[in-house]
Amino acid sequence: MSLSAELNSRTRFLRACRGESVDRVPVWIMRQAGRYLSAYRAIREKHAMMTVLNTPELAVQVTLLPVDTFDLDAAIIFADLLPPLIGMGLSVEFVPGKGPVIHNPLRTNKAIDRLSVPPAEETMAPTLEAIRLVRPELNSREMPLIGFAGAPFTLASYAIEGGATRDFAHTKTLMYHEPAAWNRLMLKLVGVVVDLLKSQVGAGADCVQVFDSWAGALGRYDYQRFVQPYSRMVFEQMGNAVPVIHFSTGTSAYLDLIAAAGGHVIGVDWRMDLDAAQDIVQRPVMGNLDPGTLLGPWRELRPHVDDVLTHMHGRGGHVFNLGHGILPNTPVDNVRRMVDYVHSGDWAHGRS
Amino acid sequence: MSLSAELNSRTRFLRACRGESVDRVPVWIMRQAGRYLSAYRAIREKHAMMTVLNTPELAVQVTLLPVDTFDLDAAIIFADLLPPLIGMGLSVEFVPGKGPVIHNPLRTNKAIDRLSVPPAEETMAPTLEAIRLVRPELNSREMPLIGFAGAPFTLASYAIEGGATRDFAHTKTLMYHEPAAWNRLMLKLVGVVVDLLKSQVGAGADCVQVFDSWAGALGRYDYQRFVQPYSRMVFEQMGNAVPVIHFSTGTSAYLDLIAAAGGHVIGVDWRMDLDAAQDIVQRPVMGNLDPGTLLGPWRELRPHVDDVLTHMHGRGGHVFNLGHGILPNTPVDNVRRMVDYVHSGDWAHGRS
Repeated sequence: MSLSAELNSRTRFLRACRGESVDRVPVWIMRQAGRYLSAYRAIREKHAMMTVLNTPELAVQVTLLPVDTFDLDAAIIFADLLPPLIGMGLSVEFVPGKGPVIHNPLRTNKAIDRLSVPPAEETMAPTLEAIRLVRPELNSREMPLIGFAGAPFTLASYAIEGGATRDFAHTKTLMYHEPAAWNRLMLKLVGVVVDLLKSQVGAGADCVQVFDSWAGALGRYDYQRFVQPYSRMVFEQMGNAVPVIHFSTGTSAYLDLIAAAGGHVIGVDWRMDLDAAQDIVQRPVMGNLDPGTLLGPWRELRPHVDDVLTHMHGRGGHVFNLGHGILPNTPVDNVRRMVDYVHSGDWAHGRS
Repeated sequence: MSLSAELNSRTRFLRACRGESVDRVPVWIMRQAGRYLSAYRAIREKHAMMTVLNTPELAVQVTLLPVDTFDLDAAIIFADLLPPLIGMGLSVEFVPGKGPVIHNPLRTNKAIDRLSVPPAEETMAPTLEAIRLVRPELNSREMPLIGFAGAPFTLASYAIEGGATRDFAHTKTLMYHEPAAWNRLMLKLVGVVVDLLKSQVGAGADCVQVFDSWAGALGRYDYQRFVQPYSRMVFEQMGNAVPVIHFSTGTSAYLDLIAAAGGHVIGVDWRMDLDAAQDIVQRPVMGNLDPGTLLGPWRELRPHVDDVLTHMHGRGGHVFNLGHGILPNTPVDNVRRMVDYVHSGDWAHGRS
C-alpha cells in the first residue's frame, strides 16, 4: 500500500476501526495503565484506587503513562467498570489484592427497583473531567482516546454477585426466577451505559469500548434471550458517531450473536483464531494475543505474536490487542518488544 | 425404534457411548454425589473430604446415593481429581468452603524432577477398593460404573497454581520458560493418569472419563503444542477396552483439536449447541445443560432441557449430562424432574 508511515496514531486507529487501509497495524493494550508499570504502582502506593478514579489530574497522569512509555496507537481513559454502579446506589469497595467487592449486592426485586439512574455528568464527573483534561495532551501526540463502559450483562452480574464468581449462581438464579425484574434491571443499565458512553464522547473520546467481559458464562440460548436484546439497545442508541468496540471473552461459540447485537469492531479473546472470528463477525476485529504469553521469554512470545498477525495478514480491519487485560506481573520489556515488533512489519516478511 | 424399554441402564449407557441405538437417552450428572444432596451433606458433617476418599465403605455409600435417589443411567465412583498428586509428592488439603489447596505448588525444574510416579495400586488403593466393593451393588441394579482422572494439563495446572486461578499465570510462565521441564512433568502425569484409569477398569469400571476441565484457559496454538500431544498419549494408551469420555470446558473454539487428541465420547459444555459440537467431533457427545439452569424454576429449566434434547433429536450418540458439575444449591426436585423428563421422551412429541 502507498500510505507507508504517513498516518498518525489517531488516523491509523480510527481507519482500522472502520476497516479502511492503514500503513501498519495499530496496537493498544487492554488495562495498559496497570500494575505491570512501576510508575503506576508508585502512584497507587500513594493513592487508593478510588482516589485515582475521583481525581481527574491523577487519572490523566495514569492515562498518559503507557502512551509515553510505549509506541502505542491509542490511549484509554483511566477508569473502571464499577463506579457507574455506585451512582445507582451500590456500595463498591476496591479491596487491595482482592478486587472490587459490593457490600449490598442486588438480590431482590425491591433492591432493583430502588436503583436510581442518575446522569453520568453527575455521578461520573471526575472521569468526564479527566477526558476533557487529557484531550489536548493527546491532540499534541496525535493520539486517539478510547472511552468505555461495562455492558449491561457484565454490570448486572457484578451487581448481583457482589464479587468474583465462577458459576454466576446468583445472577442466573435471579435471571431465571425473576425475568421481569431482570428486564427492569437491564433496561436501567442500558440507560446508564448509553448515557455514560455518550457523555464520554461529548467530553472528547474518539471511540468507545463496551466490555461484556462475563458474557461467556452463558450459552447461546440464554445469551439470546437475556443479554442480546439489551446489548443491541446500547449499540443502536450509540449509532455511528464514533466507532464502538464490542468486547467479550469466552464467547467463541456465539460470536455470531455478539456481532448481531452490534459494534463496529468486535474484540475477541485468544481462544479462537482471529481470522476465523472475522469470518463469523464480518467486520473489523480487535485482539487477540493471550495475555499469559507476555509472561514468557521473547523466543516464545514472538511466535505467538506471529500467529495472531499471520492469521490476519492481508485482511485489514485489525486492531492488535491482547484478548483480555494485561497481567500484573508482565515484564515491561516484553510489552515494548511486542509493540515494536507489531509495528515493524518484520513478521510479514517471511522468516525461514 | 424397536428397543423400547428393553435396555437396562448399563446396556443403554454403553450403547450410547458407542453411538449405537438406544431406547431412551441415558442420563447421568457430573458431581452427582455432591453437596446438593442432604444425605451427602450429612455424611460430610461427620467425615472430612479426605476421610470419605480414603474409606472405601464411605466412598461406596456416597457413590450409591444419587443412583438410589434418581433414575440415573450411570454411577461414577466417588473420588477427586487431586489425590493422584498426593502420591506424586504434593501436599493437598481440602479447605472447607474454599476447595483444594496445594501447600507446595510446583514452580521449579527441581520440584518437577522430584515428583515420583508410584503405581495407582499403592497410592489410590482406597478408590480402587471402593470400585471393587461397589461393583456387585451396581450389578444388582444393572448400572454401569464410571471411573475417572484429571487430564495431564488440568492436573499440571492444579499442581503449579496450588489453588484457584483465573489467569493460569504460574502455569503459563512455567510452560513458556521451561518447555523441557513441562515435557517431563506432562510425561509423568501421562503415566500416572493411564495407570490410574487402567487400574480403575481392572477394578471394575465400565467406562472412564478424562477431565480436562481447565483446557479452555489456552488458545489453539498452545493447546496443540503443550497439551494435545500428552492427552493423545493417554487416549492411545487406553485403547478400546472400555469407552473413554474426553471432557473439557471453554474449548468451543478448538473442539476439533480436543477430538483429535482422542476419546470415544466428547463431553461438551453449554456454550455451544450440542449438534454443532457433534458436527465438529464426529462421534458420540455428552452434555450439555448449563448447571446454572437447575437453579431456576421448572418453567425455565424445561425449555433449556428441551433445547439440548431437540438439538440432538434423531442423531443418536448422546449421553445427557450437564456441561460441568452440578452446583451445591441445586434443588433436588429439579434434578428429579429433569432426569424423569429426559427419560419420558415427552420433549420429542412436539409441544404447541
